[in-house]
Amino acid sequence: MSKQAKTAITPTREENYPEWYQQVVRAAELAENSDVRGCMVIKPWGCALWENIRTALDGLFKATGHVNAYFPLFIPKSYLEKEAEHVEGFAKECAVVTHHRLEEGPDGGLVPAGELDEPLVVRPTSETIIGATYAKWVQSYRDLPILINQWANVVRWEMRTRLFLRTTEFLWQEGHTVHETKEEAWEETVKMLEVYKQFAEEWMAMPVLTGEKTAGERFPGAVNTLCIEALMQDCKALQAGTSHFLGQNFAQASGIKFQSREGREEIAWTTSWGVSTRLIGAMIMTHADDDGMVMPPRLAPSHVVILPIIRKDADQEKIIQYCNETAAMLRAQSYAGRSVEVVVDDRDINAGEKGWQWIKKGIPLRLEIGPRDMENGAVYAARRDLGPKEKYTQDRMEFVSTIATVLEEMQNNLFEKARAFRAEHTREINSWDEFTAFFKEGCGGFVLAHWDGTEETEQKINDELSVTIRCIPFDYEKSGTGQCVVTGKPSRGRVIFAKNY
Amino acid sequence: MSKQAKTAITPTREENYPEWYQQVVRAAELAENSDVRGCMVIKPWGCALWENIRTALDGLFKATGHVNAYFPLFIPKSYLEKEAEHVEGFAKECAVVTHHRLEEGPDGGLVPAGELDEPLVVRPTSETIIGATYAKWVQSYRDLPILINQWANVVRWEMRTRLFLRTTEFLWQEGHTVHETKEEAWEETVKMLEVYKQFAEEWMAMPVLTGEKTAGERFPGAVNTLCIEALMQDCKALQAGTSHFLGQNFAQASGIKFQSREGREEIAWTTSWGVSTRLIGAMIMTHADDDGMVMPPRLAPSHVVILPIIRKDADQEKIIQYCNETAAMLRAQSYAGRSVEVVVDDRDINAGEKGWQWIKKGIPLRLEIGPRDMENGAVYAARRDLGPKEKYTQDRMEFVSTIATVLEEMQNNLFEKARAFRAEHTREINSWDEFTAFFKEGCGGFVLAHWDGTEETEQKINDELSVTIRCIPFDYEKSGTGQCVVTGKPSRGRVIFAKNY
Repeated sequence: MSKQAKTAITPTREENYPEWYQQVVRAAELAENSDVRGCMVIKPWGCALWENIRTALDGLFKATGHVNAYFPLFIPKSYLEKEAEHVEGFAKECAVVTHHRLEEGPDGGLVPAGELDEPLVVRPTSETIIGATYAKWVQSYRDLPILINQWANVVRWEMRTRLFLRTTEFLWQEGHTVHETKEEAWEETVKMLEVYKQFAEEWMAMPVLTGEKTAGERFPGAVNTLCIEALMQDCKALQAGTSHFLGQNFAQASGIKFQSREGREEIAWTTSWGVSTRLIGAMIMTHADDDGMVMPPRLAPSHVVILPIIRKDADQEKIIQYCNETAAMLRAQSYAGRSVEVVVDDRDINAGEKGWQWIKKGIPLRLEIGPRDMENGAVYAARRDLGPKEKYTQDRMEFVSTIATVLEEMQNNLFEKARAFRAEHTREINSWDEFTAFFKEGCGGFVLAHWDGTEETEQKINDELSVTIRCIPFDYEKSGTGQCVVTGKPSRGRVIFAKNY
Repeated sequence: MSKQAKTAITPTREENYPEWYQQVVRAAELAENSDVRGCMVIKPWGCALWENIRTALDGLFKATGHVNAYFPLFIPKSYLEKEAEHVEGFAKECAVVTHHRLEEGPDGGLVPAGELDEPLVVRPTSETIIGATYAKWVQSYRDLPILINQWANVVRWEMRTRLFLRTTEFLWQEGHTVHETKEEAWEETVKMLEVYKQFAEEWMAMPVLTGEKTAGERFPGAVNTLCIEALMQDCKALQAGTSHFLGQNFAQASGIKFQSREGREEIAWTTSWGVSTRLIGAMIMTHADDDGMVMPPRLAPSHVVILPIIRKDADQEKIIQYCNETAAMLRAQSYAGRSVEVVVDDRDINAGEKGWQWIKKGIPLRLEIGPRDMENGAVYAARRDLGPKEKYTQDRMEFVSTIATVLEEMQNNLFEKARAFRAEHTREINSWDEFTAFFKEGCGGFVLAHWDGTEETEQKINDELSVTIRCIPFDYEKSGTGQCVVTGKPSRGRVIFAKNY
């Protein structure tokens, strides 16, 4: 680092938040833009993070009775058209396959050939293609429920993209379930939202609010969309996961019918729910600082990096051996359901630069090990949640035996810090003046305010302040009745407003 | 089962092998055809099998120093065109994206709109798109080697598809590595072939031959393609994995250059290697029998199914409890790196039918547990590698404590059986008459025979007998010199012939 720069990331959050975000992603080597419009390359450190997210979520899905399956990438155009609102929502931004080969054109270059009878859409989401399969699987109430999840890539042709937050292709999971009754489907919708909340808070260390979307913000074709909403460090909200109660809309469109216990033919009830690589963007904007990424220990690709400090060639072999021994001891420990993961970084590059690379990657713990540490049976440690220069010497055995405790403490600290930030930027507001000032003059945040329940008012707030209703909390009536912050009309409870991603 | 049918699968392998295959896939609920041309739905049992394959292979890749990353689904047409042989090989069968939205057409239906300036191809393989990224990553010899693997879906527009064996969309992994020298790249190519061989033999219980492909069978653009080849039960060979030495062809085309240790600009050396969901087809055709799938225990989605046999309602609760206890004891055991996985199948359907469903799914062990077993602290067990009616009573504790040993014994038995089958159907042949008779009159198999090394001879054998050279064994010169089985011209060693998938 040059002397001018006091932080590893330039600009800082305060100087230019969107640019800071891009620089954190770059410096942490999480992902980069590809030459293909809006598609990203997820680099090894980002991919390992996604794999940890996947493993943890998959465990939660299995614990709630779900199994995985895999459905086709392509959706025939006619399938998408089956549900009117759904096609309306996705037709404007989908990759369309029209040909099945390339052949030499008149000027020598290759041109598309073999036109398809019916264009195929690269799945933007899979309700319609999965629904067509479920229609074949379901005959009787005995075939229900179907509780299936899919890990897949999807494509939505976004005009303005940003790494992880909004990309043309992204990775996600999509759960698709079928039920006998409305009540069971609703219970599933709520249960999966709870799973997302649990994952966000316990694994990502990211506090979330939960509730229902307003009609205008629903998934196209859904009866009801539930969501988890988190507050980023620039005081804008980010929708991190959604769980949709689809009623009988998609079952009707796809023909998912069954013979009921009473022998009648009935239309099934379905749900769908998903989270994506966007979660990585959420994690960055919740925890990263002006020195780069900060990984929540439970999901960190590696927990500890060991940096051998070799001042004389004669020490090299012994120090490397001591480092490898330390790594082996740490790997024998376990934390959050896996072995403690350790990198011994013995690359022959400048030690300071090397340390900063790992700070920017957000690894929870760094150990510098030189001749004196070795002689003393010690390690010289640094925690990513403390300042880059706050380091401490610790007995090696003690460091090893307390590693899981320290990691969990760091995990909890990150959660508490994010919770405090959210509390600081959440306010109950009762007047339009105060509402306007909150979003125009300050950095913003979550506002709990009364709303008259109309789309007109929702639209007016959005037009004037670019502020939207993030969700209607499940228990919103507990906040008491009041008057709409815009129109003064009666309101049954407070809803959550914020600017958003 | 009706009394006429003596096997769970109709037709049998002998009656109609291709149809038997389809019926095994169907009866085991591994996959089914979707409404999208050539694309399959991988059902939960098949998906769990693929996930186990993925986990085991991923462990082997990581143990050999590789990390995962993820690259775009789409390849700009111009990228594919960069390597002449490569585009030649893939242009004829690729899904082409030409538009990025659907909009209302003249007759009310949706039509493709928003034509792209440059068509995008859905990746049939990723050498070109990954190469473009590597070109940016690599500046100096210090950036090498790059050892990356990707788990992804790919699309090849196949005209004749068959579940798992050849589908338009399939799941696979593709390793893409970059090296400083030819020797290192070659070493990597060979190393990954060895990883595939190890996986096929130790995990899939499927013996494989290894060697080089002839020029005509190489991956388009490769300097050399190495492969593993297995013999299916109809005596046809199946290529189960390939590892390509790409020389400098793709590095040249993508511009992967680096400053060498001597300060010169040099072109890098690359490799790529992949296996796909085709492995599931290989596993079926190696191990399944006329009663359905037979899962190699190390990869089986579940190891044991427990079938409660309830004759009186009064027994129900106690028997279910005994079954659940047994399941918990088994789950506390581990085998091949994971907990023993157990299903308690208490569905209220006919017990005989239920048992047959699990036989067809190929689960290694079935336990029927009725009141007498419970009273005796016993289980009534059946192994999938024995006849469907060969069952035995065993003390429950003994069954639990020996589970890993029994599973490993079954794994080894499957491998030995497949190896014996291959030995029985492998022959050294020295005359054209005998060669012809072997393939025309018998079921076929692997033939080790002399070949004059020319494409003409290779083509003639293919034209006359639909027999191809599966590989040239690495040590083929050890088999001694001889005379080509077709032309009588001199040969340096025996190569492997077979009919193939």
